[in-house]
Amino acid sequence: MSKCPFDFTRRNFLALASGIAAAAGVGYGARTAVDVIAAKKSELPARQALEPFWGKHQSGIVTPVQTHTYFAAFDLLTDKRDDVIKLLQKWTTASARMADGQSAEPVDNTSSDASVDSDDALGLSPSRLTITFGFGAGLYISDGKDRFGLAAERPEAFVDLPKFNGDQLVETHTGGDLSVQACADDPQVAFHAIRQLVRLADYIAQIRWTQAGFASSPPGGGTPRNLMGFKDGTGNPSIKDQEEMDKIIWVGNEGPDWMRGGSYMVARRIRIALEHWDRMKLAFQEQTVGRQKISGAPLGKVNEFDKADLAAVDKDGNYIVPENSHLRLAAAENNDGAQILRRPYSYNDGVNFTAERWPPWRQGMEYDAGLLFMCYQRDPRTGFIKIFDKMSKFDMMNQFVTHVGGGLFACPGGTQEGEFIGQRLFQST
Amino acid sequence: MSKCPFDFTRRNFLALASGIAAAAGVGYGARTAVDVIAAKKSELPARQALEPFWGKHQSGIVTPVQTHTYFAAFDLLTDKRDDVIKLLQKWTTASARMADGQSAEPVDNTSSDASVDSDDALGLSPSRLTITFGFGAGLYISDGKDRFGLAAERPEAFVDLPKFNGDQLVETHTGGDLSVQACADDPQVAFHAIRQLVRLADYIAQIRWTQAGFASSPPGGGTPRNLMGFKDGTGNPSIKDQEEMDKIIWVGNEGPDWMRGGSYMVARRIRIALEHWDRMKLAFQEQTVGRQKISGAPLGKVNEFDKADLAAVDKDGNYIVPENSHLRLAAAENNDGAQILRRPYSYNDGVNFTAERWPPWRQGMEYDAGLLFMCYQRDPRTGFIKIFDKMSKFDMMNQFVTHVGGGLFACPGGTQEGEFIGQRLFQST
Repeated sequence: MSKCPFDFTRRNFLALASGIAAAAGVGYGARTAVDVIAAKKSELPARQALEPFWGKHQSGIVTPVQTHTYFAAFDLLTDKRDDVIKLLQKWTTASARMADGQSAEPVDNTSSDASVDSDDALGLSPSRLTITFGFGAGLYISDGKDRFGLAAERPEAFVDLPKFNGDQLVETHTGGDLSVQACADDPQVAFHAIRQLVRLADYIAQIRWTQAGFASSPPGGGTPRNLMGFKDGTGNPSIKDQEEMDKIIWVGNEGPDWMRGGSYMVARRIRIALEHWDRMKLAFQEQTVGRQKISGAPLGKVNEFDKADLAAVDKDGNYIVPENSHLRLAAAENNDGAQILRRPYSYNDGVNFTAERWPPWRQGMEYDAGLLFMCYQRDPRTGFIKIFDKMSKFDMMNQFVTHVGGGLFACPGGTQEGEFIGQRLFQST
Repeated sequence: MSKCPFDFTRRNFLALASGIAAAAGVGYGARTAVDVIAAKKSELPARQALEPFWGKHQSGIVTPVQTHTYFAAFDLLTDKRDDVIKLLQKWTTASARMADGQSAEPVDNTSSDASVDSDDALGLSPSRLTITFGFGAGLYISDGKDRFGLAAERPEAFVDLPKFNGDQLVETHTGGDLSVQACADDPQVAFHAIRQLVRLADYIAQIRWTQAGFASSPPGGGTPRNLMGFKDGTGNPSIKDQEEMDKIIWVGNEGPDWMRGGSYMVARRIRIALEHWDRMKLAFQEQTVGRQKISGAPLGKVNEFDKADLAAVDKDGNYIVPENSHLRLAAAENNDGAQILRRPYSYNDGVNFTAERWPPWRQGMEYDAGLLFMCYQRDPRTGFIKIFDKMSKFDMMNQFVTHVGGGLFACPGGTQEGEFIGQRLFQST
């Protein structure tokens, strides 16, 4: 991607702020001062806090989890294939720029148009921004119609998610023709990115639903705890193990060309009855999860990453890791080896009015908070669907959680400079 | 406050995690291992990232702005004064503990009760957590009744906020008998704190409304930008200037004893029509705000902290800082010297369905995002009310913002160890 010499970038904003602006006599309509920066590239801060946008795989999948996310699902408002292609081209260019710490569009230094960027991320660190795109079922058939002539390209693995036991998915948090997830170590940077893409969509695509989330790690790193107070992600395959990732996460030669190096993403908005959970005894919580709360170790073990002994029984012959505990039901060895890469965020959307359906029939406010569960896999049929089918029926945790939204999205392979996201899909027909 | 030697603290969690747990043979019900930590105090990380809870003033007012907030307004469900006192005692103790990086309640190492803390902040940095309490009008008279015998103590300065021009306050984001604001450099730490206080309230008080927010600053510091892309807070009095704070923020001898060293807080949930704002020209945005977008300087000036020249006119005799610009209307010199300390956070609550009321009558999703405006002042009559009365009528920015919620809360003076929040109010009658 060629760089406009007049680009106003977040990375070089610091240089501007530190005196160049004053020297150049920045006045009214200050964007016109940006051309003085080009010559000062050597003074820029190191390219830290940048995640590469271009590559074999999309970023934001095996990227170490950032502290914040803003997820948006979109409906396509057009029936024209070219509109979709143009949108994806615009989104690709803008996303690559923003991941590089720049404004969404090049700044024309003779223009006073504000619409190239909302500027709320100006001066902030790029914060390891990643922007990950996915294609929903509506790209193939929508209202019974093959709008874009892509129906024949729908991958075999891209099945519809079944209605799982207990599902209470609401329309306003479910589905979408396209998904875009921004992740960054700053909530303002993540929201900024989505906001620019929404503006660029210009009524070709429109937001269907969004979800902000956060994931806080101990200083120095370690597995984040979710709002249940338990470490979440301990059992994940290692994102550093390329072989594991190739086996579990990335679509290989079995998939269509455009999905190779891509992955299928399942999102579930899981509301947690925190008030209820908080009243449980510690021991009961641990039995439910199958792990110790503080250490994160599987029950009967000492350290977080100790392997669970699912065969171990206590003196009465009961499993140490209970039969219907979350850990046991999710374990690969109980699911024909099925594994997924979880990349969960907590969410916290305020409070709703709720009336209890049990004595003493209290009514009042309860948190609308929980987990924006997200997972990646090579094939959802042998990944999330395989694992969750059983869990949705038996997991003790279901007393406290309700799946209220989500979707399945095919995240195409990565994009090389000059291409646009999903280009190989549109070229294949 | 005495320290329980068996306290499981977030600060010493790192020591635990780094091997002591294993040495002590942490097993099922891992909290029983915490007693081994007491002897290891010398190994604890430095007391960084801690804001003092006790003091002449409540923390969270002149504290440098943290990156995240979780605000909660509560309704009191009791008519008993003693219930309120007991609640405030519990809240004080728990808040002081959490601000010190500890669990909300002391852990009894013989118990398996989970209810002492939800543990989701376990292992996280204290993140400069502050918890700031305020008293709403319902503490004095509620439904025409002096529930707690405090009506005579209502400070003269604590007037009801008038209905300002353009106000569209909704019940579900307005008012409350008590307010509690947690601020921290981690959203999970802020939410954790409120969640513990809600549990401790145990139906004596119940959440009325909540609001999460964020404020992102450039690396190395500087004024945060709000979602309009402009720096927000430049014109604030300096929190480091004790004399200014005494003059503008802190209640002095004119107030009742319990409010001395305290401050009045106005909260306003201000929804911003971001989609609309983003379509405006840069020059128009700057005229609206009265500042340059990139530098933050007043129009006609060069640097962010240059003093605005409100008398300056262009060659046609028009004010450089426009007559109805946000900056001009808010300026102290146009408000008989009135000043407030703003402590704003951006909020981002997803999207709502909206139907435009103008051609082409588009309908679709719009952001429910904007500003959780918060300000502190010695007297709201000569602070926010004075300043905002005119702004609500004339500010050009009103085309883009709607006040949809908020409240006025009297934040009592700080608490000394052994006291509870607002104790002097309850002792004064």
